[in-house]
Amino acid sequence: MLKIEFLGSGNAAGVPVWGCDCNACLSAESDPTKRRRSASLAIHTEEGITLLDAGLTDLAERFSFTSVKRVLLTHFHMDHVQGLFHLRWSEQLEPIPVYRPDDPLGADDLYKHPGVFAFQPPFKPFDSVEWPGFRVVALPLIHSRETFGYLLGNGRYCMAYLTDTAGFPAETLSYLQRYPVDDLVLDCSEPPRDSMPRNHNDLNAAIALWRQSGAARLWLTHISHRLDCWLEHSAATLPEGVYVARDGMVLEVEKDMWTDNDT
Amino acid sequence: MLKIEFLGSGNAAGVPVWGCDCNACLSAESDPTKRRRSASLAIHTEEGITLLDAGLTDLAERFSFTSVKRVLLTHFHMDHVQGLFHLRWSEQLEPIPVYRPDDPLGADDLYKHPGVFAFQPPFKPFDSVEWPGFRVVALPLIHSRETFGYLLGNGRYCMAYLTDTAGFPAETLSYLQRYPVDDLVLDCSEPPRDSMPRNHNDLNAAIALWRQSGAARLWLTHISHRLDCWLEHSAATLPEGVYVARDGMVLEVEKDMWTDNDT
Ligand SMILES: [Mn+2]
Ligand SMILES: [Mn+2]
Ligand SMILES: [Mn+2]
Ligand SMILES: [Mn+2]
Ligand SMILES: [Zn+2]
Ligand SMILES: [Zn+2]
Repeated sequence: MLKIEFLGSGNAAGVPVWGCDCNACLSAESDPTKRRRSASLAIHTEEGITLLDAGLTDLAERFSFTSVKRVLLTHFHMDHVQGLFHLRWSEQLEPIPVYRPDDPLGADDLYKHPGVFAFQPPFKPFDSVEWPGFRVVALPLIHSRETFGYLLGNGRYCMAYLTDTAGFPAETLSYLQRYPVDDLVLDCSEPPRDSMPRNHNDLNAAIALWRQSGAARLWLTHISHRLDCWLEHSAATLPEGVYVARDGMVLEVEKDMWTDNDT
Repeated sequence: MLKIEFLGSGNAAGVPVWGCDCNACLSAESDPTKRRRSASLAIHTEEGITLLDAGLTDLAERFSFTSVKRVLLTHFHMDHVQGLFHLRWSEQLEPIPVYRPDDPLGADDLYKHPGVFAFQPPFKPFDSVEWPGFRVVALPLIHSRETFGYLLGNGRYCMAYLTDTAGFPAETLSYLQRYPVDDLVLDCSEPPRDSMPRNHNDLNAAIALWRQSGAARLWLTHISHRLDCWLEHSAATLPEGVYVARDGMVLEVEKDMWTDNDT
């Protein structure tokens, strides 16, 4: 069993943005299924749950302590680690390992007071590790601080989860080109723009990177209210094979099927 | 109108603690009215809302952007500021002033990327400021980093909100003794102990400080699951005039009445 759940598909502001009355934000206010919280995954296997990023602050209510086997971090921006500040004060004796890029600062006092979390020696680029039910490879990205995306799969299925990034390093691109990637889940924070945004992709960049990568499908994530506004009128113009992630979306790998989460 | 709402009455771990099966945590799991989130207040006046600390991460869902007039911080520990990381990305033009102790590090990258928040020049000890409907005085506390409690009131009513702290500096105590304080809301993180906990009060210290202060009533806040476990058997032994704060509790100053919040 390999089930990949999108806990969030939003950028740091989320959708709705506090105080915003754009169409996307008003629509997300009134329809909770359109809300976007911090981009992150829960990877479910027979063993339990691996959290890929931890920007949600209600993880304790969603997942029992014993179900969470490890945390895998892309980088130490608050929208990707914020949920750990609360969870760390669990007084359980069994530590939860946290895998991460080499960022000596971490986030606030998280290294100084890790609580129940055991920070593992940082990944080096292209390090690979096997856990029960799947394996991951750390792929360097281009962001304002040390950031990895992760290739994750089980031999039958392969996802490249690449956020936050503005383009790819050449070695990451050639690594992707050598693998048959089923789903490329990619930072697409902004609608098409004349010039690249800083530290993130716009839709033009995301589509160009997808084509270069050779991945079968592209899923847009780390989405801003600006992209949601653009999609409201222009979603039909997305190329075939391009999809928009949603919070709660679940991929059941055995069935190769994406569905909406009931919960 | 002056209405003081307890958004949270818990310590950094909150109640229930993730993974804990003590009586207090199990009871809070099954009865949401017993949950405790990060100690913080919303002060409601005709003008709008002043947030005293911002450890809750659902403030955007609770309070509209236009209703929040300012934020008043006791200190920059994550359980007191975490909610600002999400809110800051509001793209509204009107900044929200944040009042605070003199802590040059702040929390993570909050000073570097304040977004919609305008950090005001730090308070000096015993600085006082008047806002529509009430005034506050900054009272130095004893904690692991620069921390203020606040005296707040409107001439008819006076609350001393003092968390996080282990005891009081002498000048804070003598300041309190000169004021007729109706409600002392005090850090009481732990049940009675043989020795003082670090950086926080146990119940023995809280009661002793209250008696020295001369305040009419004592409200315990910043409560751990350990204190809740103790209270389960021993609440009846609390001296007269000592009360336990609860999340959602509201004080309507005009009526001089504490009630439970319906919401
Ligand atoms: Mn991000
Ligand atoms: Mn980032
Ligand atoms: Mn605290
Ligand atoms: Mn503190
Ligand atoms: Zn918007
Ligand atoms: Zn407990």
